[in-house]
Amino acid sequence: MHLKNFQSPVEFSLTNYYLKGEPVINQTRKTKDLTGIFQDQKAYESLYPEQLIYSVQAWMPVPEGTPGGLFFGVSTIMPGKVGNEYFMTKGHFHSKSDRAEFYWGLKGKGMLILMDLNRNTWAEEVCPGSLHYIGAHIAHRLANTGDENLVVGACWPSDAGHDYDEIAANGFSARLVEVDGKPRLT
Amino acid sequence: MHLKNFQSPVEFSLTNYYLKGEPVINQTRKTKDLTGIFQDQKAYESLYPEQLIYSVQAWMPVPEGTPGGLFFGVSTIMPGKVGNEYFMTKGHFHSKSDRAEFYWGLKGKGMLILMDLNRNTWAEEVCPGSLHYIGAHIAHRLANTGDENLVVGACWPSDAGHDYDEIAANGFSARLVEVDGKPRLT
Repeated sequence: MHLKNFQSPVEFSLTNYYLKGEPVINQTRKTKDLTGIFQDQKAYESLYPEQLIYSVQAWMPVPEGTPGGLFFGVSTIMPGKVGNEYFMTKGHFHSKSDRAEFYWGLKGKGMLILMDLNRNTWAEEVCPGSLHYIGAHIAHRLANTGDENLVVGACWPSDAGHDYDEIAANGFSARLVEVDGKPRLT
Repeated sequence: MHLKNFQSPVEFSLTNYYLKGEPVINQTRKTKDLTGIFQDQKAYESLYPEQLIYSVQAWMPVPEGTPGGLFFGVSTIMPGKVGNEYFMTKGHFHSKSDRAEFYWGLKGKGMLILMDLNRNTWAEEVCPGSLHYIGAHIAHRLANTGDENLVVGACWPSDAGHDYDEIAANGFSARLVEVDGKPRLT
């Protein structure tokens, strides 16, 4: 008897931190997709609408909403600022808001901005080797504070979902801006 | 207003793939802890009882059993064989058996041995950069088929639990042995 050996359909490169394989979904967010996210409207409008601000790769081996399953992703945020505010992701709560998520820093330098349901906001420094637990009921957003791509690994439950509406409507209670060349949450 | 920046309490080193930090739990499995796992009883008894076969590091930020939370771990399996069978982990189903898990290869060479509830067994090759989704109701075990440590990252739900009893009682339906210098599932 010689039973079957298989190869996984997805590779998670340890050299360039890219997900490769047929099931991988690639999502991009350009300037034009991020209306209302940044404070400085004039600086936002001066950016090229097709400029890539961040991308998310994901392997979702089961349908979204499946209880007990997991998804795996890699987020890449480009370096840059809108006025004095760093390029960042939209940010979201999970739809099932008790669902957690792990992020881990792979490349570059940034901040993980976190906000609880009482709108208390804080941040954790993201760098290669940093590991971050985003617990229940915590909104989360990544900002690139460096001068190269910020690359972050992620794993989250397949029934977590994304609630972008609360953040789109009310934002976070603090913004990450550059003051005297350093990131400050204000 | 200058809001707080924090550092995560856990580091996931990208050079040696070790979890570091006060909350990290370190579990070891020595020869003496693995009675009944390997087929060749005489070869098993000839091993030094205190020899480390594998270790599991884990960050469990919420209590075991918490719905919606996640745990993060790193497993390291030493190179070696018991007779012609590779050093391997005990293997388990999840207690909540619909709970999934991601494994990803970080270092070394091995096999992820998988078995469904009908006792069909198969395997996936693990190497640096391989990413593995262990879906609902699938028992899983890692074997080191190389000559250096096999290091694998893992993320799983905090309410998954571990059911070792089924595997301890009935094993997997196939064993990973070396035949002509190559791993074969038989």
